[in-house]
Amino acid sequence: MGMSILITGGARSGKSRIAEARALSFGPRAIYIATAEVRDGEMAARVAAHRARRGPEWQDAPAPFDLVQVLNRTDGGPARLVDCLTLWLTNLILAERDWPAEARALCECLTRQTAPVVLVTNEVGQGIVPDNRLARDFRDAAGTLNQQVAAVAGEVVLAVAGLPLKVK
Amino acid sequence: MGMSILITGGARSGKSRIAEARALSFGPRAIYIATAEVRDGEMAARVAAHRARRGPEWQDAPAPFDLVQVLNRTDGGPARLVDCLTLWLTNLILAERDWPAEARALCECLTRQTAPVVLVTNEVGQGIVPDNRLARDFRDAAGTLNQQVAAVAGEVVLAVAGLPLKVK
Amino acid sequence: MGMSILITGGARSGKSRIAEARALSFGPRAIYIATAEVRDGEMAARVAAHRARRGPEWQDAPAPFDLVQVLNRTDGGPARLVDCLTLWLTNLILAERDWPAEARALCECLTRQTAPVVLVTNEVGQGIVPDNRLARDFRDAAGTLNQQVAAVAGEVVLAVAGLPLKVK
Repeated sequence: MGMSILITGGARSGKSRIAEARALSFGPRAIYIATAEVRDGEMAARVAAHRARRGPEWQDAPAPFDLVQVLNRTDGGPARLVDCLTLWLTNLILAERDWPAEARALCECLTRQTAPVVLVTNEVGQGIVPDNRLARDFRDAAGTLNQQVAAVAGEVVLAVAGLPLKVK
Repeated sequence: MGMSILITGGARSGKSRIAEARALSFGPRAIYIATAEVRDGEMAARVAAHRARRGPEWQDAPAPFDLVQVLNRTDGGPARLVDCLTLWLTNLILAERDWPAEARALCECLTRQTAPVVLVTNEVGQGIVPDNRLARDFRDAAGTLNQQVAAVAGEVVLAVAGLPLKVK
Repeated sequence: MGMSILITGGARSGKSRIAEARALSFGPRAIYIATAEVRDGEMAARVAAHRARRGPEWQDAPAPFDLVQVLNRTDGGPARLVDCLTLWLTNLILAERDWPAEARALCECLTRQTAPVVLVTNEVGQGIVPDNRLARDFRDAAGTLNQQVAAVAGEVVLAVAGLPLKVK
């Protein structure tokens, strides 16, 4: 077991806020690893607004693809917050990268980290079966990734209406 | 903290039944605050059937919009059951009312109530991301409202297969 | 209360794996009651691959419709795993069978079983309200069936990211 903490939950379930508080519980500073790809000006504005809201205790380290490398490079320092795994998976699938291999590499990397890693992810599999094949495949991939990361995490939390429900 | 209890859950998760039992745990009578808008005969028939099922211990106080006023007016008496917040939010959005302001007013109102309030709401954010913008916006609004009410509630329960899972 | 255990969860939440382990916790052998209808070669291949993965401790007893009969016939032996209730419900609805009557018969049957029964089911009601009527009706039926089986089960577990969360 590494020092990883997985925070899962639905849209607007408060998972990022819970994860930010958890990352800052380890010390006065933390590293924010955003997986969102900044593709246009609207996105850049959102990222800037998000950064301003978070405050000066956060250092930024974007990782739309190279999450393992960024985790390894930042290990040994303050806690890291990865927000979020579902976007990272989306990036890998859209770029036609080998996501199962990347997921395995991430899990291996997590077990070797010495500084804490808090990872945010999404519950996407509790609605009705989607009509289109791509959505079903993505749902399966996201669920599989969540299970793999949860298996190596030391702590797993489900966010419900902004509140943490301990799962592991 | 007020005496509010939030019961959240998916469709047909048994949340209304759990909430009804909880409201009647405070005394022999309770007030049923329905937020559904009665727009046609089919809806009126459903409301009448629901009322018949609930039994004579329930007094009706519909509040498709003016939830805060109805809560304030009925305070000091028996427990109130609000069923449900998601329909109330839908009514506000469809009527182009300022739902964030109404949500803040509701939370302030809840902290001042002296008689119990049991509120039913829906989990709508654990499926795949909806295709259309309106559904995504509604999902975000519903999640935000749930978080705000959960923050001021003294008790939060997630209904799973008809069973209550304590979250707060 | 019978010896039934209900494992519910979203798509790819690890519910089948949790259920398989639970069924084999009662003894070295177990009976796998698949409810999937084998309609074509692709399906037959998937069933064969699944059987190979499960290993020789499992005996197969398919029951796309006649779940009650198969449970009664296999009672008194090793634990049974029913995978899954949602597919069984789908089969009943597509064949225009009286699913509420079948659900009642299942619940009565479960309370009389003497050997353990582990049942897998799906959470499908935590997404946004589906656009089409059939999906909404199915969602309501699935939620109702889950509640009924959970009420007679001795144990209910929610699978989250491959981990069991005790509900009952």
